[in-house]
Amino acid sequence: MASFVLSMAVILFFLFWKYPVVAESDGVRVAAIFVVGAALSALAGWAGMLVATKANVRTTVACTCGSLNDGLQVAFTAGSVMGFTVVALGLAGLTIAFWALRSGGTSDKEALQLLSAFGFGASTAALFARVAGGIYTKAADVAADLVGKVEADIDEDDPHNPAVIADNVGDNLGDVAGMGADLFESYVGSILAAATLGADSSARVALPFWLSAAGALCSISGFFLVSTKQEGNGWNVQLSSLMWAMEKGMYFAGMTFLVSAAAITFSLFEAAEAMCIFGCIVSGLVGGMAVGKTTEFFTSFDHSPVISIKDQGYTGPGTVVIQGLGVGMLSTVPSTIIIAATILLCAGLAGGYGIAIASVGMLATLGITLASDAYGPVADNAGGLAELAGLSSSVRAKTDSLDALGNTTAAVGKGFAISSAVLTSLSLLAAFRDQVEIPQGFDVCDPVVLSGILLGAMLPYLFGALTMLSVGKAAGAIIDEVRRQFDEVVNPKGFTLRSAIVRASAGQAIPPEEDVMPDSDRCVALATSAAIQEMLAPALFAILSPLTIGFLVGPRCLIGTLAGSIVSGCVLAISMSNSGGAWDNAKKLCEKLQIKKQAVGKACIVGDTVGDPFKDTSGPALNILIKLMAVTALTISPMLKGKADWETWKVGVALVSIMVSSVYVLKARGVLSWGHAPALPRPAKTSKVGVAEVFPAIGG
Amino acid sequence: MASFVLSMAVILFFLFWKYPVVAESDGVRVAAIFVVGAALSALAGWAGMLVATKANVRTTVACTCGSLNDGLQVAFTAGSVMGFTVVALGLAGLTIAFWALRSGGTSDKEALQLLSAFGFGASTAALFARVAGGIYTKAADVAADLVGKVEADIDEDDPHNPAVIADNVGDNLGDVAGMGADLFESYVGSILAAATLGADSSARVALPFWLSAAGALCSISGFFLVSTKQEGNGWNVQLSSLMWAMEKGMYFAGMTFLVSAAAITFSLFEAAEAMCIFGCIVSGLVGGMAVGKTTEFFTSFDHSPVISIKDQGYTGPGTVVIQGLGVGMLSTVPSTIIIAATILLCAGLAGGYGIAIASVGMLATLGITLASDAYGPVADNAGGLAELAGLSSSVRAKTDSLDALGNTTAAVGKGFAISSAVLTSLSLLAAFRDQVEIPQGFDVCDPVVLSGILLGAMLPYLFGALTMLSVGKAAGAIIDEVRRQFDEVVNPKGFTLRSAIVRASAGQAIPPEEDVMPDSDRCVALATSAAIQEMLAPALFAILSPLTIGFLVGPRCLIGTLAGSIVSGCVLAISMSNSGGAWDNAKKLCEKLQIKKQAVGKACIVGDTVGDPFKDTSGPALNILIKLMAVTALTISPMLKGKADWETWKVGVALVSIMVSSVYVLKARGVLSWGHAPALPRPAKTSKVGVAEVFPAIGG
Repeated sequence: MASFVLSMAVILFFLFWKYPVVAESDGVRVAAIFVVGAALSALAGWAGMLVATKANVRTTVACTCGSLNDGLQVAFTAGSVMGFTVVALGLAGLTIAFWALRSGGTSDKEALQLLSAFGFGASTAALFARVAGGIYTKAADVAADLVGKVEADIDEDDPHNPAVIADNVGDNLGDVAGMGADLFESYVGSILAAATLGADSSARVALPFWLSAAGALCSISGFFLVSTKQEGNGWNVQLSSLMWAMEKGMYFAGMTFLVSAAAITFSLFEAAEAMCIFGCIVSGLVGGMAVGKTTEFFTSFDHSPVISIKDQGYTGPGTVVIQGLGVGMLSTVPSTIIIAATILLCAGLAGGYGIAIASVGMLATLGITLASDAYGPVADNAGGLAELAGLSSSVRAKTDSLDALGNTTAAVGKGFAISSAVLTSLSLLAAFRDQVEIPQGFDVCDPVVLSGILLGAMLPYLFGALTMLSVGKAAGAIIDEVRRQFDEVVNPKGFTLRSAIVRASAGQAIPPEEDVMPDSDRCVALATSAAIQEMLAPALFAILSPLTIGFLVGPRCLIGTLAGSIVSGCVLAISMSNSGGAWDNAKKLCEKLQIKKQAVGKACIVGDTVGDPFKDTSGPALNILIKLMAVTALTISPMLKGKADWETWKVGVALVSIMVSSVYVLKARGVLSWGHAPALPRPAKTSKVGVAEVFPAIGG
Repeated sequence: MASFVLSMAVILFFLFWKYPVVAESDGVRVAAIFVVGAALSALAGWAGMLVATKANVRTTVACTCGSLNDGLQVAFTAGSVMGFTVVALGLAGLTIAFWALRSGGTSDKEALQLLSAFGFGASTAALFARVAGGIYTKAADVAADLVGKVEADIDEDDPHNPAVIADNVGDNLGDVAGMGADLFESYVGSILAAATLGADSSARVALPFWLSAAGALCSISGFFLVSTKQEGNGWNVQLSSLMWAMEKGMYFAGMTFLVSAAAITFSLFEAAEAMCIFGCIVSGLVGGMAVGKTTEFFTSFDHSPVISIKDQGYTGPGTVVIQGLGVGMLSTVPSTIIIAATILLCAGLAGGYGIAIASVGMLATLGITLASDAYGPVADNAGGLAELAGLSSSVRAKTDSLDALGNTTAAVGKGFAISSAVLTSLSLLAAFRDQVEIPQGFDVCDPVVLSGILLGAMLPYLFGALTMLSVGKAAGAIIDEVRRQFDEVVNPKGFTLRSAIVRASAGQAIPPEEDVMPDSDRCVALATSAAIQEMLAPALFAILSPLTIGFLVGPRCLIGTLAGSIVSGCVLAISMSNSGGAWDNAKKLCEKLQIKKQAVGKACIVGDTVGDPFKDTSGPALNILIKLMAVTALTISPMLKGKADWETWKVGVALVSIMVSSVYVLKARGVLSWGHAPALPRPAKTSKVGVAEVFPAIGG
């Protein structure tokens, strides 16, 4: 990651040194700010992950020695570290960088143009945390599930499964660090966009900073309210009441934030303008919550969508997958309408600046929202540890209750992440449009803009496909390793791992001297190297697309591309995340009903396997994609100012040639492999016709 | 369907009677033209289906008594009936209606405004054929596959499976009638859009009619060239050489068409303009073929994408599904780039009219393209009949060869259908933009337009989800019926159907008196009623969305909605169709390698189950959606001319209230059911915990 960030910094240095906004020193300043943005994002993720990893054990201990509330407090505090670090580093970094940039007599507008490199840096770091992290976590998870639960018929966190440790590590990596970096990017991006759009008035530049600072303080006050008096009783816990334990903190933070936001806006602006802007803040906050609640409806097992997925399990895994995809696609409807309504409301109240302020308002109490989100994986892993360590069922009951709560907060958090990503990137788009001044305008029916929209709509699919296929490839490698270990890992007494697994599956006690433990480290190493290797192609596509289209074709096509990628990315991300969440909870519903070892349960596990890369790799990665493309465009906007388009027919020819040549280059470099044959030699024993015999016959 | 068309006609009558373009008689004329458009489309589909059904048997007979060429000739001739009927009815209907409208001294422009009702009628009929047909065919197919191949382990077309007949009927309904109506709509739409965009010059209005007529004649000349000298040898037939049997006809038609197109353009226009327009025709033709070839690469089992899906079968059904989704999403990349390049090229050469002419050029040789496409299901069913009738393996070898060819032409045809749908609807969009004259323009960053794009991007997901969930619901009902028959259908000697199936699965011969035949008619009746019931909600959404947004919010938001739905529908349709095609062929690859009864094969069958609604219901239905919305907008465009927007905040509030109220209405009407519980009581024997015990516990 460091080498990638540094090489991007060098490119930025040369670009801004050649085409400076203010002075030739721009190159150095932009490159430095870019690196700082990336470093702070990575630091926040690293801190959150460090605390979360330790908190896993402590939560298990708290559940063993204390009440459910003790466990909740430990896990939630761990999540808060992440939340408050992200907010503190984001706000402080941005403020200091802005102050440093303005110091040399530079105007607000010019300083903000350079400051977008901070957001670009944050996006680049988020790309790594979310995409590589997402591939890692889900490859491990898919492998652990398929070989453990489906093939060997053992429990989810059974210590005999070699991929369980990699799976648990991945939960922290993807969900904690990835989510943190994602929202760090949104947080920074929304402030940046609002300030850029309000660059003509100093009050409008100051407002997003004030709001974010007030929101951070309110989040801290809300933090102290989180507690519960419930007892742990597994998945049958009264979820609404347990949810209230967390919601009372969030609502308190939201309320106090609204009061302080009103005070801030009315002191910065005169009454009429303040009224409108405050309206935007309120609609941002309400819109974010509404999308979160919608997400909860579609993914919680208390509601009909998830129950219908489980029911389709009676007709097999195929119908489970169809139903889950349908539920996910349907779930885009209310969310999209809410987001569109928020956009229209805010635009009516205060124009493009209103939309940007709505996303600042939505993200202002990020401290506590992110805390409740990062809490989820801690609780999940605490449960995993309780099972791995073979603790008593009363402990497991408490950790399961915490896990059920985490499940809900994670769903709400995902809806929140997507809607904030969409609003943020739309604001960045509007900021970009302000920066590049094109006389022809951006008519949606203009072929240049329209083909940009079409290409943009395709990019989330490319990005989603690459990340999803990567999960398949990496998971395949881990599965082969796990299967190898089943037969080849032998303890001193000569018992194979498989023998221990057969007993574990049958629920028999295994005498310590006959027990066999797998080589988990090899799985972790395999998953790590695969994830890093696999993320390069999507990362390059995400950064190079706006650069290529912007410089080669022109800013009008780029605006189209950004608009297309935002809308298409929004619906695809919602659809994938919610499908994934719904399958996950359909599986959990089967566990709760204790039918997970029957045909229905197995069908739902197949759904969950498909859903894993949906909800934790590709879906969230799209949040990053749309913000990254928008912030990249904003960063290079000074160079695109007033740039004329290419003639359209040249563009057409160029597009096709770029495609053909990149296919050839990628094919030659082996990046376009489909993950079969040499990359993944399958053990011959799984089938009578081995892969080696098959390929020559069909010329693959 | 008749009642739906008539009620739409009444609505149109009142709209155009109240707000006439030319005179008060507009209402009658528009309503009549709408009904004629719908009737002709239905007639073409009905004729094609009638011939195809009879040709199934004749192809089997030809393969039994004659050579492979005889079978090919019969099947291809049957397909041609469909192809030439569609072209003849479309062109003749449009020409006569246009002539009738112009007769009263009406100008070209006004006549074309009314003529769009013809396209609207064709779209409405296509909606029925594609959507209801798609739901029918795939519900039957999913049910037949799941219960037959997966559960009972018998062959695909085993006569003991009660759902096989419904499956075969569905192949004709969805693939023949549906595809015909879909392309009828594109054909009519592209001519309409080109004429509307060229309304200022009589040569430009005449050109699309001339081109289509020339293309129809060239198609007929190409038809006589289709023949093969190969012998049938099952799936191992030399596909490229067999493909050439069909391609030589298509290429000949294409070549002669290009020559006549050159003659027509150069006689209608002066050299410079003719040059540009001819360039558009060529790029349309080339673009369509290129997308078709791309589709073939991603869905044919000779290439790596499908092989990689089969390979993922070694790690189970979950990874097969992931890989297939990834392949489908990746396949959007080249297709989208080709379409975007075509748009840019044509726009550079001749503006919006160029894009419309490109789609006319793409569709001019529809006669033979559609023939090769409608040939596929005939060959497929001929194979099914050979198996059902227990004919010798040499016959089956010939029908399998024909089926393999049909597989490839179907893939090419689907790519062709999507790219022509996108170009046609973009032309319709441009025509709509010409008709409504709005002073503010349609800036892509304008919140009203942008939220339109966002809403539009969501609509294909809504439509896709509704159709897909419908398949699940209908399939569930058929599966229950099949399972019931397994145990309850008994022959006079007291043998149950299940006993016959167990023997068939083991490959034992069954003495005639111990054999049991299922009650196929009940499955057919069940599938029909379910399909009609399920298609109403998506049909209403597709027609009401443009009306609501256009009249309530305004034409600017509607333009955004159309653009959003076209681009999002394009990528989603390509992705779904190609995923489905790839899964289908991964399964066929397993059959060819004779590993279909192993774990790999079973995993691929799950993939195919998911893919069935993708490739034959939701994916193609999206073609209809985008064209239908665009042509609906064009039809009502005279009423929207110069209409101002609502204030944005009102729109925001209105959107949310429409959503909330429609959710309540739909819920009250039971349309929002998820297909579980009372609608689909599962047999208790499939699980220890029946649905009845489960629901009270979780309050579903």
